[in-house]
Amino acid sequence: MAAHPPAHPRRLLPLSLGLFQGALLLFFALFITYDKPSAQAEDANLVANQLYGIFPLFQDIQVMLVVGLGLLLTFLPRYGLSVLTHNFLLLNFSTQWALLLQGLLHHIHHGQVHLDLHNLLIAEFAAVTVLISVGAVLGRTSLCQLLIVATCEVPVYLASEWVIVTHLGVLDVGGTITIHVFSCYFGLGVSKALFGAVQRPVHPKENPTPCSDLMSLVGTLILWVFWPSFVAVLCQPGDAQHRAILNTLLAMSASAMTTVVASSLLEKDGKLSPSHLQNGSLAGGVAIGAVADMTMPPVAALALGSLSAMACVLGLKFLTPLLARKLTLQDQCGIHNLHGLPGILGAAASAVAILVAPEDTSRSRLSQEA
Amino acid sequence: MAAHPPAHPRRLLPLSLGLFQGALLLFFALFITYDKPSAQAEDANLVANQLYGIFPLFQDIQVMLVVGLGLLLTFLPRYGLSVLTHNFLLLNFSTQWALLLQGLLHHIHHGQVHLDLHNLLIAEFAAVTVLISVGAVLGRTSLCQLLIVATCEVPVYLASEWVIVTHLGVLDVGGTITIHVFSCYFGLGVSKALFGAVQRPVHPKENPTPCSDLMSLVGTLILWVFWPSFVAVLCQPGDAQHRAILNTLLAMSASAMTTVVASSLLEKDGKLSPSHLQNGSLAGGVAIGAVADMTMPPVAALALGSLSAMACVLGLKFLTPLLARKLTLQDQCGIHNLHGLPGILGAAASAVAILVAPEDTSRSRLSQEA
Amino acid sequence: MAAHPPAHPRRLLPLSLGLFQGALLLFFALFITYDKPSAQAEDANLVANQLYGIFPLFQDIQVMLVVGLGLLLTFLPRYGLSVLTHNFLLLNFSTQWALLLQGLLHHIHHGQVHLDLHNLLIAEFAAVTVLISVGAVLGRTSLCQLLIVATCEVPVYLASEWVIVTHLGVLDVGGTITIHVFSCYFGLGVSKALFGAVQRPVHPKENPTPCSDLMSLVGTLILWVFWPSFVAVLCQPGDAQHRAILNTLLAMSASAMTTVVASSLLEKDGKLSPSHLQNGSLAGGVAIGAVADMTMPPVAALALGSLSAMACVLGLKFLTPLLARKLTLQDQCGIHNLHGLPGILGAAASAVAILVAPEDTSRSRLSQEA
Repeated sequence: MAAHPPAHPRRLLPLSLGLFQGALLLFFALFITYDKPSAQAEDANLVANQLYGIFPLFQDIQVMLVVGLGLLLTFLPRYGLSVLTHNFLLLNFSTQWALLLQGLLHHIHHGQVHLDLHNLLIAEFAAVTVLISVGAVLGRTSLCQLLIVATCEVPVYLASEWVIVTHLGVLDVGGTITIHVFSCYFGLGVSKALFGAVQRPVHPKENPTPCSDLMSLVGTLILWVFWPSFVAVLCQPGDAQHRAILNTLLAMSASAMTTVVASSLLEKDGKLSPSHLQNGSLAGGVAIGAVADMTMPPVAALALGSLSAMACVLGLKFLTPLLARKLTLQDQCGIHNLHGLPGILGAAASAVAILVAPEDTSRSRLSQEA
Repeated sequence: MAAHPPAHPRRLLPLSLGLFQGALLLFFALFITYDKPSAQAEDANLVANQLYGIFPLFQDIQVMLVVGLGLLLTFLPRYGLSVLTHNFLLLNFSTQWALLLQGLLHHIHHGQVHLDLHNLLIAEFAAVTVLISVGAVLGRTSLCQLLIVATCEVPVYLASEWVIVTHLGVLDVGGTITIHVFSCYFGLGVSKALFGAVQRPVHPKENPTPCSDLMSLVGTLILWVFWPSFVAVLCQPGDAQHRAILNTLLAMSASAMTTVVASSLLEKDGKLSPSHLQNGSLAGGVAIGAVADMTMPPVAALALGSLSAMACVLGLKFLTPLLARKLTLQDQCGIHNLHGLPGILGAAASAVAILVAPEDTSRSRLSQEA
Repeated sequence: MAAHPPAHPRRLLPLSLGLFQGALLLFFALFITYDKPSAQAEDANLVANQLYGIFPLFQDIQVMLVVGLGLLLTFLPRYGLSVLTHNFLLLNFSTQWALLLQGLLHHIHHGQVHLDLHNLLIAEFAAVTVLISVGAVLGRTSLCQLLIVATCEVPVYLASEWVIVTHLGVLDVGGTITIHVFSCYFGLGVSKALFGAVQRPVHPKENPTPCSDLMSLVGTLILWVFWPSFVAVLCQPGDAQHRAILNTLLAMSASAMTTVVASSLLEKDGKLSPSHLQNGSLAGGVAIGAVADMTMPPVAALALGSLSAMACVLGLKFLTPLLARKLTLQDQCGIHNLHGLPGILGAAASAVAILVAPEDTSRSRLSQEA
């Protein structure tokens, strides 16, 4: 029922989106400019070097969100094309919406708004929360409903991110808490609100085929490869960024191996479950975000990756069916296992890391210098 | 008929290609060298930094042309494999052919020819025009015919590019006019010449399946993600390049959203048409090329992206059937909608931008400095 | 028989992998640290610049190994999902195992071990040999058997690499000899040991379908695009790296064209064989590795690419069936044609290059300076 809106709002969706594009154009025309071109040759070199530092990582993240995440969600064979399309549109809509909100807030405080690649990246991070959240209701919602979710989630994210990072001073360079944990519970709330009363059985069309599992695994692998860029892009250039990349690589490698161990111990015939692999391999990346650039021994990254993969596989096997049965909480993609549990582990690790070495984390050192 | 050459030239294709490879080897042996290694450590650092600036963008463009464009063209389910292969071979053949022609021209004027990544990139841009043009006759031509098209198109492109850029001084950093508009009308001409008299109905095998549409959409998304690299790679490093990236990102984002609006308003059931999405989302990138690095307000990039997506979707819906009916002009991939119309819009935008701010465009400023 | 281990070791695989993860954790806890953060701002800039130089190439290589090679191996339609999974796990396992062995060796000699992106890359190169070798026994071995192969191959590779590069002083920046030739003959040895006595007919399930050939070709194209990063990543920054990139691009372009020529001359109906394209296009990249950064004329790179593609296609057509018939040597992916023959050609080219220009190779010049 919810998935099939009546016929007359058929024009409602394009018209509202069109209105939104108009509002965006107006807002850009009134308030947004680019930075002044730098007058001196030295500055131009600096700008070029900064660009060479951030742009390849930015492209990696775009590949993750547009291609990797899109493919990961195609595991439902009948919805492949629409899921890929919806993911792409939600990313664009939410990024534009976040740009507009960020710009408005900044304009109220400081007047003119200068757009650069860094602002765009921050807006895209806000869009990531939407892409994660809608995983909970994948294949059961219309594009219209998804856009309403996005419209609500982006301002809530911006507020919560401000509270967590600016107000409480939580260190979270890879978005473990602000992005992953937040969007997981927001998405579960949406799922409960939309489908809370209904105990819906799994539709046969929703069973993955070998081909759809293959496409989905390719999506996982793309996310797995580029995850270090996602975690490291906002780090301080230099040692902290190098450390963030290494920690993420170690955590993701440990995740992949631990997923195999956990999955083949849990499955009766010792075979690997594709859905375990698709999710568990990425759990380490979710968990490491909060601590990736801190000065901690490499073994901590390995251990965190292993633990989060275990949590993810156990969650997929036991917690998701339990939640569906007891709380009638439906979680189509298992976002609670991939983003919720590893995110909480990562937050706990972050607390431990700060307690153990309160004076020594590089970020505090660097921010004192700056 | 044209698609099935008689049996005896079966050996003609490999033999001519083999001869061409031999000629290329001979030409390289006689005329092409690399730059002298730089003697001083400072120079070596400079070379390394230039390489770090261009190489990631070069790789992005290679992914676009080899993987992204190849997959985009696989929407005809029965031709998937051969289309991907033909695209790959045409890219290689045309790049080599452009290298040879460029080298010859340069040799005649300046003697020894030094090969570097920049030359290779310019040659690859010449090959792009071939890859675009053959979209008009996709699936109806043999590899032999495609190679003949490439052989003719590359020198014509080099001449037209020289006239437009060097002689007329048109600013066109992203190739909107020199690449997209040129190759679109060249391709339509080829289509008219080959199939002009025949009113061919669409073969049932040529209807996309959900699976081939999915692959094709993945190709679109890869192109969408890496398009900023394509537009920005030849810009002046620093502010101009930064601006080109931002403008392209804005235009492509506006394109994607406007395509959804336009497509769901035009389609009877309000559903999105895959072919609209596959083409419309990229229209902004085509249009923005001519103005991407100019100092213009960000809203202009958004507006240009929206307009070109609208033109592209309207073209797919109304113009292509009209052209096929009235002029018996067949355009298999709709290159007129993706490259022709947005390219003309971009050229118009470029004229406006120069009229409005004749003294202020960064490129002229930078070239005066240089 | 060998492919179906009895039922009770079902738990053996996860338990041994779990034990290995535990050992890795212990080893990291005891011996591995990161570099000290650099104290001065200048050093931080240097670290950042080094990172910007290596990280994009590192990511390219990850895409090659995880996505490109994985997809290339999916040409057997029924094994697609498991082949992609096995490739991913073998990469992770072998990298961790190589890290552990390298760390142990280094620890014995120098005490504390500092982990950085360069070490990780070296370990990943060791893993590449495993991924290549197992191509010979693809689809006929269990994950357990593959892990045993990896366990044996990594230490043998490290020893042989030490002998060839450190002891004999062979220049091999792209791993032509140390990686490709080594892993090819190691893999053939494994195949002989496992299936040597049996003359197994090709199972009908092992015939590629158009869809699996398409996926496999996409894998080839991804490898083709990113190969220059693989060859150039360990080069001296500056001219040598630039030259390595150009030589690789030229060799791969020549390979692609020559493959078409050779394949359509050899096939009866003049059509291209997908497997020729999938392998031959990459042969130039294998061969160029040993000489890529030397000062040689560009024509040599073109010629080497052409020759190796010819060798690869001829090998696929004639040598593989011959070996299977005469020596009962099975080579599922034809690794002897893609890695063995072009690797030997590359090694010969390297010898010629050093004889012709013994004093002039850039690497010796640079290493004398350093």
